[in-house]
Amino acid sequence: MQKIVGNCLVGQSGGPTVAINATLCGVLNRVIETEAYDTVYGMLNGIEGLLQKKFVNLSEFFETEEERTRLQTTPAMYLGSCRYKLPSADESPDTYTQIFEILKELDIKTFFYIGGNDSMDTVLKLSIFAEEHNYPVQVIGIPKTIDNDLPITDHTPGYGSAAKYVATSLLEIAHDTYIYDMPSVTIVEIMGRNAGWLTAAAALARNSYNASPDLIYLPEVSLCRKTFIEDVKKLQTQRQNIIIAVSEGVKGENGDYLSASGTAVDSFGHKMLSGAATVLEDWIKEDIGCKARSVILNVLQRSAGHICSATDIKESLMIGAGAVDAAANGITGKMVCYKRISNTPYKVEIITSDVDGIANAEKKVPAEWITKNQSDVTQDFIDYARPLIEGEMSIAFKDGIPAYCNIKHLQQI
Amino acid sequence: MQKIVGNCLVGQSGGPTVAINATLCGVLNRVIETEAYDTVYGMLNGIEGLLQKKFVNLSEFFETEEERTRLQTTPAMYLGSCRYKLPSADESPDTYTQIFEILKELDIKTFFYIGGNDSMDTVLKLSIFAEEHNYPVQVIGIPKTIDNDLPITDHTPGYGSAAKYVATSLLEIAHDTYIYDMPSVTIVEIMGRNAGWLTAAAALARNSYNASPDLIYLPEVSLCRKTFIEDVKKLQTQRQNIIIAVSEGVKGENGDYLSASGTAVDSFGHKMLSGAATVLEDWIKEDIGCKARSVILNVLQRSAGHICSATDIKESLMIGAGAVDAAANGITGKMVCYKRISNTPYKVEIITSDVDGIANAEKKVPAEWITKNQSDVTQDFIDYARPLIEGEMSIAFKDGIPAYCNIKHLQQI
Repeated sequence: MQKIVGNCLVGQSGGPTVAINATLCGVLNRVIETEAYDTVYGMLNGIEGLLQKKFVNLSEFFETEEERTRLQTTPAMYLGSCRYKLPSADESPDTYTQIFEILKELDIKTFFYIGGNDSMDTVLKLSIFAEEHNYPVQVIGIPKTIDNDLPITDHTPGYGSAAKYVATSLLEIAHDTYIYDMPSVTIVEIMGRNAGWLTAAAALARNSYNASPDLIYLPEVSLCRKTFIEDVKKLQTQRQNIIIAVSEGVKGENGDYLSASGTAVDSFGHKMLSGAATVLEDWIKEDIGCKARSVILNVLQRSAGHICSATDIKESLMIGAGAVDAAANGITGKMVCYKRISNTPYKVEIITSDVDGIANAEKKVPAEWITKNQSDVTQDFIDYARPLIEGEMSIAFKDGIPAYCNIKHLQQI
Repeated sequence: MQKIVGNCLVGQSGGPTVAINATLCGVLNRVIETEAYDTVYGMLNGIEGLLQKKFVNLSEFFETEEERTRLQTTPAMYLGSCRYKLPSADESPDTYTQIFEILKELDIKTFFYIGGNDSMDTVLKLSIFAEEHNYPVQVIGIPKTIDNDLPITDHTPGYGSAAKYVATSLLEIAHDTYIYDMPSVTIVEIMGRNAGWLTAAAALARNSYNASPDLIYLPEVSLCRKTFIEDVKKLQTQRQNIIIAVSEGVKGENGDYLSASGTAVDSFGHKMLSGAATVLEDWIKEDIGCKARSVILNVLQRSAGHICSATDIKESLMIGAGAVDAAANGITGKMVCYKRISNTPYKVEIITSDVDGIANAEKKVPAEWITKNQSDVTQDFIDYARPLIEGEMSIAFKDGIPAYCNIKHLQQI
């Protein structure tokens, strides 16, 4: 590989995942291995931090392989994150001049940005500006999101681990419900406002003895109260314990988020936004009258590093390395992607794709992977998702809790 | 050890834990090892199932050590559970006659009952009845509860694993909150209606870089809104991200559950019972006006077998074995307990104690383990709890999810 004279800069943006630091490690490892750059700089709190000149020399922090290994399975962004929408170059040319001046000062030849849809928008804008103004900076996007909603790439780093957490939790919740000899309905709310990939992963909890979740509702479908109640009643004639997986973004018949349809008001009389699960719980209580409870799977979906998927972590390392390789090949304005080569045995390779077709787009669960009755996913989805949650990493523990990297380290220096 | 001619019967009762099947295994292993009984019967759905003559020959199901090993870390009751309050012998002598007739039919010499406070009440009543009516049946209680609220025993089987889940989750939630460079308050609600042991375990999430949770509120204290808001405001002058651990059973100044104080009403105008975390979230929004969110740790606290504590599982095996040994020594009407011999190195032994002093009693977190300002626990608590969450089990996985024992098996035969 050709050595690029100069440095590179890497940043993380958007919501946390369990694998985003593995991708950062992938970049670091590949640079160290190939000596592609002199120094790897990390921007703190993404592009927003960069504008405040907040960056560190990462090569100094992760000199040892031991530290980089520990970083691989450390949840949430080691570099910090931001939710900053980069204005267009027309709106704010100064912002761009400022960014590229900082890059020049640091002798940055490649700008790696790890993130989701919004971050790819930043990659697109910066790469166009660099090209138009002849700045010798390559800009490369690296995907990351538990939502798995980026187009082109077969799946996204971070999704497999979140899906493994969801599937494992659903199985454990099933164990919890099976112990009493009485009817119960448990509704589990899973993250995903517009794409149902993570909620669909609840189906991976099924095994030789566990058929639940019994119903799965994705944001891709509209949920009719009457049909829903009929479905639950029908299931109750067959078994005692019903488990329902519902996406936080599931919509009602009118196309609005179900979570906006609650009628509860707070002490000021303001309408309260209930979760989707709470709405279904109320429907069951009102229309069937049986016991129902909601379980809201929370931020641990994206932060439970202790149960990450080995496939996800290994691929996240690979895609980080692939971004460095792409840079060495002179690529800019593209995102590195997974391309699935085969399913048995499962195998992916890293390709690149124009970020233009990825930024601000959203990949939903295809209609043909949702069953006709709209309350489950098909075997095709299972075949697609199963390999992504397979394998377990050996996580170091200290004093009974995971021994992650100090996530606050960079913010303290 | 003396062989008892006849059989034994074991049951599980109350809420699930991750370690309750390890205790069942401990009984099974010890019986197999010592040939103490001819057959180990299991009652399905506790004493309630026994009254319906629902029992199985467990020796047949767990012939292989491999199956028993898998059972050790299978969450929730393999035998099923019940929430049945045994009436007193005065109220319903027939119930007792019926039970002891079934025991006679099965040639049961020892009745082992694994459970919490209510189950120990059953042990107490049955042992007294057996003694008074000269039934040759020993009745022995084996503790189980994530609440850790049983007296005499140093701690309860199941608590260590739940505490490990809570501590790990709090650390991972801290990672999740640290990524943004903006103020946030996260309130984590933890199980425990009257005793704060599990909420206190949130303190075990602290490590060299993580000082959170910043505030811990147990049901043992009364929470004053004014002091609470002052505490939060003071912390906000020192750091960006505040994490608060609160027990579901925390009480307000009037001594009522805080969760009952919400003013929200549902679509019928009925008062809604918000969780304690939601009440604190509302206080922060109303009195400080900053962003706050609640995370309700749910049933996974008692069911997340994949992150069980090795100390807890090993001790649960040991206490199950200890119950068999106690029976061989002619003991009845007692509960097996952990007695802590030393803390460094950590070491416990199994003793027995009259169930009379345990049934229907509740052990709370002692006042001297709660800090003076009532919003944290002391180092003494940490020293007590730390060893209980230490060590990790190697959990088998299949297809990306834990390979537990078929929890529905017995209910399907």
